[in-house]
Amino acid sequence: MSRVVVGTPRTDPEIVAGFAGIGVATVHEAQGRTGLLHPRLRPIYRPAHVAGTALTCEVAPGDNWMLHVAVEQARPGDVLVVTPTSSCTDGYFGELLATSMRAHGVVGLVIDAGVRDTAELTEMRFPVWSAAVSAQGTVKETVGNVQTPIVCGGAHVHPGDLVVADGDGVVIVARTRAADVLAAARQREENEDGKRQRLAAGELGLDIYGMRDKLADRGLTYEEYSE
Amino acid sequence: MSRVVVGTPRTDPEIVAGFAGIGVATVHEAQGRTGLLHPRLRPIYRPAHVAGTALTCEVAPGDNWMLHVAVEQARPGDVLVVTPTSSCTDGYFGELLATSMRAHGVVGLVIDAGVRDTAELTEMRFPVWSAAVSAQGTVKETVGNVQTPIVCGGAHVHPGDLVVADGDGVVIVARTRAADVLAAARQREENEDGKRQRLAAGELGLDIYGMRDKLADRGLTYEEYSE
Amino acid sequence: MSRVVVGTPRTDPEIVAGFAGIGVATVHEAQGRTGLLHPRLRPIYRPAHVAGTALTCEVAPGDNWMLHVAVEQARPGDVLVVTPTSSCTDGYFGELLATSMRAHGVVGLVIDAGVRDTAELTEMRFPVWSAAVSAQGTVKETVGNVQTPIVCGGAHVHPGDLVVADGDGVVIVARTRAADVLAAARQREENEDGKRQRLAAGELGLDIYGMRDKLADRGLTYEEYSE
Amino acid sequence: MSRVVVGTPRTDPEIVAGFAGIGVATVHEAQGRTGLLHPRLRPIYRPAHVAGTALTCEVAPGDNWMLHVAVEQARPGDVLVVTPTSSCTDGYFGELLATSMRAHGVVGLVIDAGVRDTAELTEMRFPVWSAAVSAQGTVKETVGNVQTPIVCGGAHVHPGDLVVADGDGVVIVARTRAADVLAAARQREENEDGKRQRLAAGELGLDIYGMRDKLADRGLTYEEYSE
Amino acid sequence: MSRVVVGTPRTDPEIVAGFAGIGVATVHEAQGRTGLLHPRLRPIYRPAHVAGTALTCEVAPGDNWMLHVAVEQARPGDVLVVTPTSSCTDGYFGELLATSMRAHGVVGLVIDAGVRDTAELTEMRFPVWSAAVSAQGTVKETVGNVQTPIVCGGAHVHPGDLVVADGDGVVIVARTRAADVLAAARQREENEDGKRQRLAAGELGLDIYGMRDKLADRGLTYEEYSE
Amino acid sequence: MSRVVVGTPRTDPEIVAGFAGIGVATVHEAQGRTGLLHPRLRPIYRPAHVAGTALTCEVAPGDNWMLHVAVEQARPGDVLVVTPTSSCTDGYFGELLATSMRAHGVVGLVIDAGVRDTAELTEMRFPVWSAAVSAQGTVKETVGNVQTPIVCGGAHVHPGDLVVADGDGVVIVARTRAADVLAAARQREENEDGKRQRLAAGELGLDIYGMRDKLADRGLTYEEYSE
Repeated sequence: MSRVVVGTPRTDPEIVAGFAGIGVATVHEAQGRTGLLHPRLRPIYRPAHVAGTALTCEVAPGDNWMLHVAVEQARPGDVLVVTPTSSCTDGYFGELLATSMRAHGVVGLVIDAGVRDTAELTEMRFPVWSAAVSAQGTVKETVGNVQTPIVCGGAHVHPGDLVVADGDGVVIVARTRAADVLAAARQREENEDGKRQRLAAGELGLDIYGMRDKLADRGLTYEEYSE
Repeated sequence: MSRVVVGTPRTDPEIVAGFAGIGVATVHEAQGRTGLLHPRLRPIYRPAHVAGTALTCEVAPGDNWMLHVAVEQARPGDVLVVTPTSSCTDGYFGELLATSMRAHGVVGLVIDAGVRDTAELTEMRFPVWSAAVSAQGTVKETVGNVQTPIVCGGAHVHPGDLVVADGDGVVIVARTRAADVLAAARQREENEDGKRQRLAAGELGLDIYGMRDKLADRGLTYEEYSE
Repeated sequence: MSRVVVGTPRTDPEIVAGFAGIGVATVHEAQGRTGLLHPRLRPIYRPAHVAGTALTCEVAPGDNWMLHVAVEQARPGDVLVVTPTSSCTDGYFGELLATSMRAHGVVGLVIDAGVRDTAELTEMRFPVWSAAVSAQGTVKETVGNVQTPIVCGGAHVHPGDLVVADGDGVVIVARTRAADVLAAARQREENEDGKRQRLAAGELGLDIYGMRDKLADRGLTYEEYSE
Repeated sequence: MSRVVVGTPRTDPEIVAGFAGIGVATVHEAQGRTGLLHPRLRPIYRPAHVAGTALTCEVAPGDNWMLHVAVEQARPGDVLVVTPTSSCTDGYFGELLATSMRAHGVVGLVIDAGVRDTAELTEMRFPVWSAAVSAQGTVKETVGNVQTPIVCGGAHVHPGDLVVADGDGVVIVARTRAADVLAAARQREENEDGKRQRLAAGELGLDIYGMRDKLADRGLTYEEYSE
Repeated sequence: MSRVVVGTPRTDPEIVAGFAGIGVATVHEAQGRTGLLHPRLRPIYRPAHVAGTALTCEVAPGDNWMLHVAVEQARPGDVLVVTPTSSCTDGYFGELLATSMRAHGVVGLVIDAGVRDTAELTEMRFPVWSAAVSAQGTVKETVGNVQTPIVCGGAHVHPGDLVVADGDGVVIVARTRAADVLAAARQREENEDGKRQRLAAGELGLDIYGMRDKLADRGLTYEEYSE
Repeated sequence: MSRVVVGTPRTDPEIVAGFAGIGVATVHEAQGRTGLLHPRLRPIYRPAHVAGTALTCEVAPGDNWMLHVAVEQARPGDVLVVTPTSSCTDGYFGELLATSMRAHGVVGLVIDAGVRDTAELTEMRFPVWSAAVSAQGTVKETVGNVQTPIVCGGAHVHPGDLVVADGDGVVIVARTRAADVLAAARQREENEDGKRQRLAAGELGLDIYGMRDKLADRGLTYEEYSE
């Protein structure tokens, strides 16, 4: 029951390119607050930002064999997304795999497990979001899955979905929704520009968003301080 | 039972200013090792140091509505101190709120929950100590409290208390004790200057602090190594 | 039963010097994937790399008295390795102890507990791997052990063992095995140079390592994507 | 984007009934080691065993409003499966909701968050698997989803999927695979009966499974103890 | 700065007696969802329920000396509430201390640290809520505080406050509010009796609480399932 | 480098028998507070108590192959002690292995990882101390070590060492020290009998242990309560 699925569709590269510079928080909001991975996944260096298409990989604990299988399936612009079948902090990925992945066009790694060679990965500017850093090596004995739907960091990921990651975390956008989410994200950024100016000028969110009545309705009261 | 208390007293700004450059470890020692927040609260960038007066805010899990209420209560030199009523890693605070807070004189944030827009906050040099980083947004449905006494990171915080934070964590000094603690902290720094020189010259703490007899009394013995 | 063992042997300084620039992951592999400390021990700043001889110290929770005893036993090139008898995040070590340690030739600290004065330690470039950062001070009431065998971060450490630490973690090499491990590590680095070039040129690990048949034997299958 | 899906299909009740008394470990093995929820989900009392059809519910942190919506969608034999959109330990569910759920035929609860009234739930013998126990109450302000596909405890759950839970944890079986998994589980139990007898008689797994040659091939060696 | 405060007032014993059999969740609700300790504090056996007056004690990590000081301050009906100055799992309390505490009228223990002798404590039916169980012993070297206000498990506790604990956790009620909270708790229990009957009869919370319009306002929609 | 060591010595069975009914806390104290495993290892049912000789086993994450190798090395009275080379919660051990182990005289299991079939293990009264319960199965691909010295739960364990485990945790006693520790444990139990009677009669530890002067020396003061 170990499978590699070939010929999976990917999010349109032009749409992916549109997400350059758009933050994870904005994308997350723009698609209705879904698709975020657990905050235990953190970047190994900052600042870092990547947008790409998910190359999914499911591995056994302490076993990175399937990463070698995944390289062959990579296409330029992919982000490798790896999940172990049970919690594991081992260092599944290091400089050699990053070199190989980059040669095949992979632009980053998201892994709900550990990585190693973080100094070299940082120097190479190969961006990684991981749940741990550990020098502990892995074996190559158990097969898994490549380019099948997986759950990574509590989020559902299909091959070819859009992956956006930055200092705030990692978000997945379904391939078929990516164009709509891009439009919504841009709209959101524009709206924020206007609000930013008003807030910087000292205007209160209470007034901009008209919150005062609703707060009072919910029972908020103001009282004078007394010792 | 949702309250905003207005007119709360604040630690004297001149005393607050005296804490510029004094480290959290020194302050913590100077007040008898009390008032430290749990070490899960970490700065989003380093180095960072802030000293200010506590603007307290108690929020529901996943709900940042009261932060908008808190802005209006801010005074120059305040540090916003936020605690959720139960553990939550959501991103309560981002760049827009930081812009608004800064416009009202707030000099930093301490939150026993999550923040987002960390790249922008870092660029703005708006210092934040948080228990998590997460792009997960929050709602605006449930009221809470502003400028009431709270427990944050296991420490008791009253509005207007002194907050000092740096790479080692966050410490709270009661408003009425701040002047004494400042004096004690300065004294401590002077004492350390003398010790630093002696230690750098190779003198042993065992001798400087006269520990040898007490160690022997407690049963410490020296023995030769044997295979 | 509190002991300081004097005259413990140390790994040959020339061998230790050979580990300069060799990463923890490589050392860990070169000695058969043993000796790694738990990944909760993280460097307080990066990049950082150190190789030295273990000066071991076992302490009570919240009590750093034995660190002062350990200084006297230090020899140039030592790395202080500290373990508490039960989990503790307190700040056992700060700038004054680092000053003293450095005056006696200690080149770094590995501690399965907390440290403080991280800004000063970073400025001094005194490398530290710790399980926590906390300003919480410690007392000097309970004796422990110096230069006895300890378990730190789940690894067994004898006085004088080789300690190598970098951004990936901390690994211990038994004193008597250090020469062999150095040779194996160098061999490994040479092998990796060859592989790196082939991988960078786009060759697949599947082919370089001849994995295809073994993967098929284990049941890996390829299938075409269908909606 | 808050939805209740009505008319979702459920696993055939006769198949569900077949899982009575079959352990989670056996089911998990029988379907190729997939579908297991994270081990942080633990039963509030033991022994406990349930097999039922998933009534899915996605909730906001600290907000149990949608549980009241879910009750109306319940059918006899359902197990309520609840996931919060971010980590939360609040007590979403207590005795009153259990009373209501039971009145509508719900036979158990799986929740990646907290529950309360554990004494009453235990007395009622309403089985619960949860990530926490907490008296902390929740609000009713934010809508979510009922009977949509969710990720709970790291596993993908569709409405109507089979849920089996016991002292070892919780496993999800896709509705369409349930009949096959039941057959495989029964086969597995029969096989184990034979092995159990041989093992109880002192025969070694090394011989029963013919492992000795393979172990030697992988490098396992036997040596005599020497001091 | 180590203090024992004598002559602290206690919640009226008749009011305390009124809380017999009232659950923590009910008390927590009745006082506006405040005062709950972190859910990491769990009972060492179940079922267990206690209501008493707080005898507070602040201890150093790994040091239980102050518990001996606390015994002398105990009055019949007290619950010992212990907090360490930093996180610690050591076993501060065992059978001998329980024997001594019981001789002085103490009816239970709440500790944000570890306990030991759990088999004996269970046999004695001395109820304990703790953050850990550990056989690790403690020293008697560092003084602390008895009957001063403390923070335990994230909640503020004053000497003499009411402590209620059961299988759902631990809640603190301020001494001066205890009578009001008791009345509110009883009222709440009566209200729940009525609701329980209606829910058991199959009536929906959606109707009992009139939620349907509000849910629709917030955007909840119903849709038919389609493959 | 995968080894099985045969002919390892074991603690004298008569000495082991002497530990029947002696608690872990007492043993831990009797040998100078050493040898305790981390409190994350908990019994799967209570009450439970075992004393036996360590049959050590080091395994890869997610791989229980070596447990089958270990069975053959078992001798009556052994306790299997298992440690993974990196953190893992998988269920390494279940009812079939317990049946096999029992047939070879093994009286219990200590594992710094997960187990499954907990209902069956409880019914069999096969005592287990584990770091997790999980139905997740393991593979049989990677060799490890049997009857070599290991670190388990942060404690050093040699084959044949004494293992004592109960509701308070697990402690290891070196084979060569077991007789002395047994004598000290018995002495300790006798001493406690005397103290228990005095404490039950209301005498204070402050007086029995003569603590009052030392407390005053350390700065403990008594003061009257004032509002």
